[in-house]
Amino acid sequence: MSSIYIQPDFTTEGGATLHDVPIAYRTWGHLNAAGTNAVLVGHALTGDADLGAWWQDLIGPGQALDPEQDFVICANVPGSPYGSVSPVTTNPSTGAPYGADFPAFTIRDTVALHRHLLDALGVRRVRCAIGGSMGGMQVLEWAFERTDAGAPLVERLVPIAVGGRHTPWQIGWSEAQRQAIYADSKWRSGAYPPEDPPTDGLAAARTMAMVSYRSHTSFQRRFGRQRQSENGMPKNGTADAPFAVQSYLRYHGQKLVDRFDARCYVQLTQQMDTHDVSRNRGAYPDVLQQIEQPALVVGIDSDVLYPLAEQDELAAHLPNADLQVLASPHGHDAFLIEQEALNALIVQWKNAHVASATAR
Amino acid sequence: MSSIYIQPDFTTEGGATLHDVPIAYRTWGHLNAAGTNAVLVGHALTGDADLGAWWQDLIGPGQALDPEQDFVICANVPGSPYGSVSPVTTNPSTGAPYGADFPAFTIRDTVALHRHLLDALGVRRVRCAIGGSMGGMQVLEWAFERTDAGAPLVERLVPIAVGGRHTPWQIGWSEAQRQAIYADSKWRSGAYPPEDPPTDGLAAARTMAMVSYRSHTSFQRRFGRQRQSENGMPKNGTADAPFAVQSYLRYHGQKLVDRFDARCYVQLTQQMDTHDVSRNRGAYPDVLQQIEQPALVVGIDSDVLYPLAEQDELAAHLPNADLQVLASPHGHDAFLIEQEALNALIVQWKNAHVASATAR
Repeated sequence: MSSIYIQPDFTTEGGATLHDVPIAYRTWGHLNAAGTNAVLVGHALTGDADLGAWWQDLIGPGQALDPEQDFVICANVPGSPYGSVSPVTTNPSTGAPYGADFPAFTIRDTVALHRHLLDALGVRRVRCAIGGSMGGMQVLEWAFERTDAGAPLVERLVPIAVGGRHTPWQIGWSEAQRQAIYADSKWRSGAYPPEDPPTDGLAAARTMAMVSYRSHTSFQRRFGRQRQSENGMPKNGTADAPFAVQSYLRYHGQKLVDRFDARCYVQLTQQMDTHDVSRNRGAYPDVLQQIEQPALVVGIDSDVLYPLAEQDELAAHLPNADLQVLASPHGHDAFLIEQEALNALIVQWKNAHVASATAR
Repeated sequence: MSSIYIQPDFTTEGGATLHDVPIAYRTWGHLNAAGTNAVLVGHALTGDADLGAWWQDLIGPGQALDPEQDFVICANVPGSPYGSVSPVTTNPSTGAPYGADFPAFTIRDTVALHRHLLDALGVRRVRCAIGGSMGGMQVLEWAFERTDAGAPLVERLVPIAVGGRHTPWQIGWSEAQRQAIYADSKWRSGAYPPEDPPTDGLAAARTMAMVSYRSHTSFQRRFGRQRQSENGMPKNGTADAPFAVQSYLRYHGQKLVDRFDARCYVQLTQQMDTHDVSRNRGAYPDVLQQIEQPALVVGIDSDVLYPLAEQDELAAHLPNADLQVLASPHGHDAFLIEQEALNALIVQWKNAHVASATAR
């Protein structure tokens, strides 16, 4: 079910207040009478609320997300062009899209905004919050949400391919991508008209991102030095006889342009850069120690962008965490590619945890 | 000594013929009477012939490059804006810079062109060819050059932080950088006037390259989540309170714009993409087997761009190779940063090799 909830008012950490704030979301299964069987899923940078389209192997009876048991909720992130409030939605104060006036959102803002949705849906406790990459950042922020009675709102956490704060490595990748967008003169400091967006810059940013999501090994296995044409020699110019990997990257750059917005891309990469569970909460290791929920931390052994060291660090500091490594050549994207293996890891952990909780 | 040699005619692998082709080069020390004490050094993508400026710890009496013993030669690569023939030098047929008409060069073309320089200088044998990254690609191509008598021209090889062919991982990084340049409307398919170049695109490309040259660990140690201003919160827009790593990347992007040309950048990244010692020579492992010279293959344990697997592969297939790993957190750039350690590796290998050659 695809729906929109309108939050009457919302104020960001940075102090911007928005009115009539849409949150696009989807749900699977039914909330129980006590409101205690919700499972939250966070999507990644260019993802949306329709997890059936990108995590199809994780949802179904007996899977990590089980609509027969769980009330599964996936809400679109503010800043994303897939229905929640963003640069492309209408600012009720002006009647025009927010555009360049869209305020900065933090990962914490996203969780605070989505909390209003949970309250509106009648959710009183969340069994588990699960997400990879940007979705994993939300999982770690959900850890700090409390019920009215002061208990943790979310009972279990599954952060995947992420760390407790965006590191300068990830900020560097983000910044390089943003610079590619800014280099497109159609960017116009973000104040471009909807009919003339900086598509070349956005495509270049996506090209860069696609490299970061994969690995040396995966590209080698898939493309080698194959060329699209018979001619093994480069010709003068830029477009002749491209390598297969070039064609692949260009294709994905163009494909994103058809479904995404450059301001949203800038907004969301900046939002990811704000990710730091320790901000205003104390010293980083101490703050991780406060996350007492059982957590399954999943890392990918070939992840260049969020390397295993970050999940090692999380698992070392979270007092009640298990670390599982997804073995894959595919790099960061493995959390979207190796769905069967990921699902098995989560199901196994969930079953073990439920068993031990029952035994207590 | 900085000089220019003019090669009367040169035809590229792709079949383009150029006339009055300048090669900018520098030398240290003196060529012996037999012409047998040359040592060749290849520079990296944005480097130049002045290795004293970027490899200062490797040159000097008793060092890897010893002007008291060796006639050290470093020639600027065709396509680079530092004096050799390139998009910014004059096409004698038109009297104007080559600009967008500059033909494609391969790594093999670079070596063939530089071979003319060696002949003109009276070099009969080369003791050693040394280079990192793009310079290392040239080293591997020099392996195939022969004297008139059919002996290998180059007696020893030191390829650093490179593989035997550009892999799709490296081509992907190159392509993403080129796409950032193409996204700048001032690129104009490479036909931009010298006074109005696509500086934003080139800066974005450099930003991305700077990420690829470092590592998660080096960025973490150097920058963490430090910001340039006191304000820990991002403001609306793009320029407020940047992270230290953002400022660093922007600075390096701008710095390159002041000293490089976008067409040269595109040309050289395409030239690197042609790197494949096996092209027209046979099966890749067989071709590596043909490189019988003693070789010191140097890899960097934190290199994201040319990972250690590539140097492992080289060392496994070259019949007379030693592999040495430079331990460093700095990533690919370690070959320019860890000069003392790199120099020690090369000196030790050189001494051991000379001793064993004397003992034979």
